[in-house]
Amino acid sequence: MSNDGTVTLRTEDHIAIITVENEAKLNSYTPDMMRQLATHLTTFDEDDTLWAAVFSSAGEHTTAGLDMPKFFGPDADADVDPALVDPFALGRRTTKPVVAVVQGYTFTVGIEMMLAADIVVAADTAQFQQLEVSRGIAPLGGAHFRYLTRTGWGNAMYHLLRADRFDAQRALELGFVQEVVPFGQHFDRGLELAREICANAPLGVRATKAAALKYLDEGEAAAVAAIDQVKESVFNSQDFREGIQSFVERRKAQFQGK
Amino acid sequence: MSNDGTVTLRTEDHIAIITVENEAKLNSYTPDMMRQLATHLTTFDEDDTLWAAVFSSAGEHTTAGLDMPKFFGPDADADVDPALVDPFALGRRTTKPVVAVVQGYTFTVGIEMMLAADIVVAADTAQFQQLEVSRGIAPLGGAHFRYLTRTGWGNAMYHLLRADRFDAQRALELGFVQEVVPFGQHFDRGLELAREICANAPLGVRATKAAALKYLDEGEAAAVAAIDQVKESVFNSQDFREGIQSFVERRKAQFQGK
Amino acid sequence: MSNDGTVTLRTEDHIAIITVENEAKLNSYTPDMMRQLATHLTTFDEDDTLWAAVFSSAGEHTTAGLDMPKFFGPDADADVDPALVDPFALGRRTTKPVVAVVQGYTFTVGIEMMLAADIVVAADTAQFQQLEVSRGIAPLGGAHFRYLTRTGWGNAMYHLLRADRFDAQRALELGFVQEVVPFGQHFDRGLELAREICANAPLGVRATKAAALKYLDEGEAAAVAAIDQVKESVFNSQDFREGIQSFVERRKAQFQGK
Repeated sequence: MSNDGTVTLRTEDHIAIITVENEAKLNSYTPDMMRQLATHLTTFDEDDTLWAAVFSSAGEHTTAGLDMPKFFGPDADADVDPALVDPFALGRRTTKPVVAVVQGYTFTVGIEMMLAADIVVAADTAQFQQLEVSRGIAPLGGAHFRYLTRTGWGNAMYHLLRADRFDAQRALELGFVQEVVPFGQHFDRGLELAREICANAPLGVRATKAAALKYLDEGEAAAVAAIDQVKESVFNSQDFREGIQSFVERRKAQFQGK
Repeated sequence: MSNDGTVTLRTEDHIAIITVENEAKLNSYTPDMMRQLATHLTTFDEDDTLWAAVFSSAGEHTTAGLDMPKFFGPDADADVDPALVDPFALGRRTTKPVVAVVQGYTFTVGIEMMLAADIVVAADTAQFQQLEVSRGIAPLGGAHFRYLTRTGWGNAMYHLLRADRFDAQRALELGFVQEVVPFGQHFDRGLELAREICANAPLGVRATKAAALKYLDEGEAAAVAAIDQVKESVFNSQDFREGIQSFVERRKAQFQGK
Repeated sequence: MSNDGTVTLRTEDHIAIITVENEAKLNSYTPDMMRQLATHLTTFDEDDTLWAAVFSSAGEHTTAGLDMPKFFGPDADADVDPALVDPFALGRRTTKPVVAVVQGYTFTVGIEMMLAADIVVAADTAQFQQLEVSRGIAPLGGAHFRYLTRTGWGNAMYHLLRADRFDAQRALELGFVQEVVPFGQHFDRGLELAREICANAPLGVRATKAAALKYLDEGEAAAVAAIDQVKESVFNSQDFREGIQSFVERRKAQFQGK
């Protein structure tokens, strides 16, 4: 049903470009769209030729949030196969870098999915609001702890408990987004960041993300203990040899992801 | 003994207003005042009609700190019943949101109790100093880890190890306070934030705070696992139905805390 | 071999001044230099008359990083005795405060060792770059989790996955450094901060660092439980009595570290 919106996947070199398209309804998510998104993230995760993803939304706005009745109403069919990559990074998590791009209304799940990505570029039109407590519920997509890992308790509670609207500049200060650019340049800038990442060694990039996740999951001692594993995952790679070689030859490295 | 100062509790709608009053001694705390504060926080926590608290101090200054001899001297009687809510949030912790308001001298325990609250409004006159290491001891009220959860290791050590004085603007940058307003407007602004919180669903607000605390206590995996519990605590509430209904009817929700 | 550079240790009152000297090679580290650094940090840690350290590098630049072939090549002899204090604070960690001073190129291990210190002063010439993923490997000296404990996931990934170069002002915003001063004043400012720390009670300072590390290692519950231990370590000290006495006599305390 085109009425339900779609989520598309296209590729450009080593980059997966995933786009949410439901502009007529401010890109609000149906369960079908959520399943399509999870499927595309899984394709990205499993395809060795894809090294980074740009997660974007068509039009003026990122999303007005979930199409609530379709998720929580009596006839809701909102289940997503837990074997797929979870767009909220609460279940299975992609092992590769994701650059999220946001603009205009970026509400509730829009914030949570952007915080589940790795790097965020915001258009200067972006407006953020975590609306749950104003609707009688509480955040269910990870905001309750991802606000804390980005900013401190005080700033987290300031926005979570008040459900106020804040702008791109504030999101930048909070560490929720990494760059704010004029609307219209935001997608291209996200793509550029993905290209920058793809110029680096894919195995090194993934080992870095995996090691950082280790810290989030198990704390500092585990993150320290994991360093041997990191070494193993990179020192035997062809890309490490290329890295050293290019260093010796004073040229830019050409990585293969092997 | 009026000489010892008092801590008062009054209510305004669903808001508990707790005020420290010992102006003649720069609001320095005696053990009796600490017990009164703990008692009022407990009353607030247990009274279903109270949804948010404003924790403030009378006069020009938040507090010069503890009346040291009364806490650490040979005849000290500083024990507080551990069944009461702990103003430092190291023991029993209130399940409801607390907005702290600070001004002028905000020293040692003054900082620790403000960081034990959820949101802080500072007057532009606020001056902060964690004095313990300059007095031969170390922070005992939680500063040793709450500085870390608000800002990074470097900024935490910068202030904890030097015991320097810093101002409201720096506290804002550190994430210790959420708003800086002109002296004289600080209490009203704190009250306004509490009112904003009270316009949201009290159960949703409490579920959000509880879920975030889960992350602090047990880390990310536990915070993710707790989401089912969050759902249970809000989806069966009358306020959730009101939230959906008001959404459908495009009007502001009226919550009851049920 | 002077060709290999040296790391020197000198003392000034209670301060250990450790300096990396390999200017001809942009202070790049050989395994020998790393062992000298670890030895000096251990001396500092174990000498009761030394209360704080300044960790600095001679000349225009902090370091271009490791002399890679000497660490990772076929004939590498890069082992450092694990009984020594680890400059990366991944193994044995000094119990005393370290102020790091950086300037110019501060690459890879230069960032990691500065984040392993407690407080960082940067010259305005400082340029930072975590280069590993651009060379086919991943950070091995702690950047994968120390970026996270200083700033959020987004900002950490922004720099770790792109291996971009950033300046002193950005490092300040990230909480990686605590002060930026004009080049030429940076070492003196670092020394001044160390003096400020030495004016405070050494046992209190160490108890504060130990308690904060408890939080990093074991989380909030353990950090709260450790408070009794903190009390024990400071309340029986002569410096605590001096702290109280100086408070009563309204004079500056003179601490002995006992």
